[in-house]
Amino acid sequence: MASRYPLTPGITRLARRVPIELGRHHALPRVQRQQSSLARAAATAVRCFSSSRPRQLQQTQQRCANNTKFTSETYPEIKRDGRFATITADHVSYFRGLLGTESAVIDGVTSDSAADDLEPFNSDWMRKYRGHCKLVLKPGSTDEVSKILKYCNDNMLAVVPQGGNTGLVGGSVPVFDEIVINLSRMNQIIDFDEVGGTLVAGAGCILEVADQFLASKGYIFPLDLGAKGSCQIGGNLSTNAGGLRLLRYGSLHGTVLGIEAVLPDGTIVDDLCKLRKNNTGYDLKQLFIGAEGTIGIITKVSIQCPQRSTAQNVAFFGLESFEKVQQAFREAKGQLSEILSAFELMDEGSQALIRDVTKNRKPLDDKYPFYCLIETSGSNADHDSEKLQAFLEDVMEKGIVSDGTLAQDETQIKALWAWREGITEALGHLGGVYKYDVSIPLKEMYQLVEDTRARVDAAGLLGDTDDHPVRAVVGYGHMGDSNLHLNVSTRRFDKRVEEVLEPFIYEWIEKRQGSISAEHGLGLQKKKYIGYSRNPTMVGLMRQIKTFFDPNGIMNPYKYL
Amino acid sequence: MASRYPLTPGITRLARRVPIELGRHHALPRVQRQQSSLARAAATAVRCFSSSRPRQLQQTQQRCANNTKFTSETYPEIKRDGRFATITADHVSYFRGLLGTESAVIDGVTSDSAADDLEPFNSDWMRKYRGHCKLVLKPGSTDEVSKILKYCNDNMLAVVPQGGNTGLVGGSVPVFDEIVINLSRMNQIIDFDEVGGTLVAGAGCILEVADQFLASKGYIFPLDLGAKGSCQIGGNLSTNAGGLRLLRYGSLHGTVLGIEAVLPDGTIVDDLCKLRKNNTGYDLKQLFIGAEGTIGIITKVSIQCPQRSTAQNVAFFGLESFEKVQQAFREAKGQLSEILSAFELMDEGSQALIRDVTKNRKPLDDKYPFYCLIETSGSNADHDSEKLQAFLEDVMEKGIVSDGTLAQDETQIKALWAWREGITEALGHLGGVYKYDVSIPLKEMYQLVEDTRARVDAAGLLGDTDDHPVRAVVGYGHMGDSNLHLNVSTRRFDKRVEEVLEPFIYEWIEKRQGSISAEHGLGLQKKKYIGYSRNPTMVGLMRQIKTFFDPNGIMNPYKYL
Repeated sequence: MASRYPLTPGITRLARRVPIELGRHHALPRVQRQQSSLARAAATAVRCFSSSRPRQLQQTQQRCANNTKFTSETYPEIKRDGRFATITADHVSYFRGLLGTESAVIDGVTSDSAADDLEPFNSDWMRKYRGHCKLVLKPGSTDEVSKILKYCNDNMLAVVPQGGNTGLVGGSVPVFDEIVINLSRMNQIIDFDEVGGTLVAGAGCILEVADQFLASKGYIFPLDLGAKGSCQIGGNLSTNAGGLRLLRYGSLHGTVLGIEAVLPDGTIVDDLCKLRKNNTGYDLKQLFIGAEGTIGIITKVSIQCPQRSTAQNVAFFGLESFEKVQQAFREAKGQLSEILSAFELMDEGSQALIRDVTKNRKPLDDKYPFYCLIETSGSNADHDSEKLQAFLEDVMEKGIVSDGTLAQDETQIKALWAWREGITEALGHLGGVYKYDVSIPLKEMYQLVEDTRARVDAAGLLGDTDDHPVRAVVGYGHMGDSNLHLNVSTRRFDKRVEEVLEPFIYEWIEKRQGSISAEHGLGLQKKKYIGYSRNPTMVGLMRQIKTFFDPNGIMNPYKYL
Repeated sequence: MASRYPLTPGITRLARRVPIELGRHHALPRVQRQQSSLARAAATAVRCFSSSRPRQLQQTQQRCANNTKFTSETYPEIKRDGRFATITADHVSYFRGLLGTESAVIDGVTSDSAADDLEPFNSDWMRKYRGHCKLVLKPGSTDEVSKILKYCNDNMLAVVPQGGNTGLVGGSVPVFDEIVINLSRMNQIIDFDEVGGTLVAGAGCILEVADQFLASKGYIFPLDLGAKGSCQIGGNLSTNAGGLRLLRYGSLHGTVLGIEAVLPDGTIVDDLCKLRKNNTGYDLKQLFIGAEGTIGIITKVSIQCPQRSTAQNVAFFGLESFEKVQQAFREAKGQLSEILSAFELMDEGSQALIRDVTKNRKPLDDKYPFYCLIETSGSNADHDSEKLQAFLEDVMEKGIVSDGTLAQDETQIKALWAWREGITEALGHLGGVYKYDVSIPLKEMYQLVEDTRARVDAAGLLGDTDDHPVRAVVGYGHMGDSNLHLNVSTRRFDKRVEEVLEPFIYEWIEKRQGSISAEHGLGLQKKKYIGYSRNPTMVGLMRQIKTFFDPNGIMNPYKYL
């Protein structure tokens, strides 16, 4: 963190460029920030273009030496479905004829030389899942996707649709020898309506690329997440990604206006509507949002993009209890209302891990059990600062917030966000992690972390020394969406840890009518746990829908349901 | 409209309680409004509780003397499906046994005395559609809905699910002798989470009642429309109603978190999730949103409600061209951004009709080809006023807006809204209306009105005298959503008018890839026109989905697809 400035109550400081420390129960100064709106706009831009290097880095490392266990070894109970054909040279020959260019086909079937090239498509970035795929296809058009799928369906060849392969539940890599259909070549920005704000792009368009394009037009992509530099918008839709600003811009079920998709039999579903309102029949596109590639492949996306905010503020607080975090959230919703764009929660454990890894100076001097990051985005910097100021004064006076700091420029905004966005990377550096992405009614949201920690501790598995497999049980997430990321950081994988965690965590969530997957999806990881969040009637209906669209079951098998 | 005040450039007036007239190209004064936030809150409340008396009034009149032609006479080509059984005394006896209370069954099967009581359920409020239903059932619980549907499905009795019966396309009234299942008794507010803002209510809950409840908690229902005093939230979902503030709060596909629904075979689909994020399987609830009761009956709704804004402003402009309306919209999106909650368009023709009917003094002295109503909703009245002021100055200086007025209190806010919301009622008073609710890419949105007017005129059907069947061709609607209401006001129904209008209008929309139904739905009216907005592949898939959920076709037959 950059330099900080202790507050003297009642003194007004102008044009300050460093974060302000907020003293407990002290009235805040009326800080008049003198940044031009241009500088503010730049600050916004920098935040949005932050790269997701961590994931890409790990992928590169992976290509050099992949020691990841095969999924088929980790989960020996999953057996290859004998109905699926094995890929032959004839199949490869068909695909080569169809796709033309050499680079569109990575062939490990007729030659062993492509083994290294296949690796990044076979493994996920967490090195948790690894398949035996020997053929990667990179279609360049919807028509090619259609012909590929029809051929696969006719020949009982299983496939895995793949975007940026940044998923967290093993949904985008094969288990056995499924063909990977990678959408990265279908990355065009196709159309943009500058008055209405409707963007149409290929499914392979990288989220950050789409957002940069929109920034140049004064708009913003209504989804933002850590992997934005690698993930593709088709994959985002297939996962129904939530991300950092769902609180403000809502879910993809609301913002996506249309899709083009290809069904397993090659049928092209052209539902690429660009209209905000279209009540002509069942909204079929919704089934593809969050379907994780199990009923078809999304090839194009039409999405409603909001106006980009020119002003942005970020504040970081320390709070004494989860009760106070809830109070702060309620106050923020009321007082910051239409400009609130993120309300993120981090516990002290998660921040301690970042400090251990990065050695960065922490935003606040003292330690608190909880920290919140609040972001505002609006069209008038002065108004937003004033609202934020009034909010800060109020929550300090009421004793809800104990200490805080306010970013004064783009560098500080980025630095504060790093204490939230950097958690995943920091945890990755320290060893294996059991990650749970869950939704729980707000009131009990953090209780899961405490109950899990107590349970791991009681089993003698948690400690500061090497003889304990578990280093820490931490929680963070999107408070605004009741979405908790419970992470169990381990020194080594130990079967006893898993036994203590599962099914305990899933049962805990079921009792509170929470969701075992808030935004990461089911993939392979949670396929067998869906029953904790969906009743048998729902699961039965879903299975029928799967069969309706994919009677041969070739789409992303062994996963989801 | 209340008194108005001519502007002198450069003069600042304080504490003004009357609308401000904005002179062309004149700089706006910095008006400091002195209203307390309480007064502003009251203003907000009044707007939101405006009743939808017109529709209820018409329904009452209807009960006294219903001269509406039967749908079966208006559309002789629609034949009763011979697969459906005719209701017998035995059937009625089963339902009486099931529902218990006398008032839950309106029986015109075993006795003629209920004829008058059946009428309101048989006819729509526009007096355009009228069925031959002889049995209305009003279940009081999901279990009763389930038993009713199972019995109907087993006995091949066709049904029409019905909410507040405020629909505009004949979707909620029977055509022949279908049983009406009216949800009005299932009107409870079941649960509300005051921190998260999640409301759970019965499908029969009236929209305005839900919104009043939410107002008391500081929240707002994310849907608002003219019929709010009569329409029910289950019906809103089934229609996928859009309304006045979709621009701000997004569509129901984004805000609805969960539903409970009953399938035709009696299966209760419990998907009543209260979480903002839940990625565990296909999002089946989305199929019921906008399904118009053709695959099941929604019995409960869980919805994410935003914080209620404490400050509200409404401005009304005159503009010289549709080009300038587009410019004003773009500027409003940019400058008012997060506080913009409505941007409505009215042409001079629509305003002239209101003036003719109400004799009210018009908001602006001069006539303009176009008028816009802009509403802002925010958490800080001073900030919002300042933003709106800056916006007004800007659009006046740029010559985008020619004249305008700004409401100064709740009465004036209501009065200005009446010039937009009163159009439907005014048109209804003048005689028959051909109503088209369509989405068109913004650039060409108003062109449809001009082309239609020219066509009707060229056919010699449009004029001021009684020998012309058409009085006016007018356009208005939700500019923010590209949603136009094209209305053709007639002195009498004349077959030639319909021939001039259709299929011309649908073909015109098809060429622009617009939607023939933006927010009203398909119902009976647009069943045969879906092909203008959906390709055969989509329609084919929809038909399969219909068969998947309702293999016997008992749900709301003769409509939708």
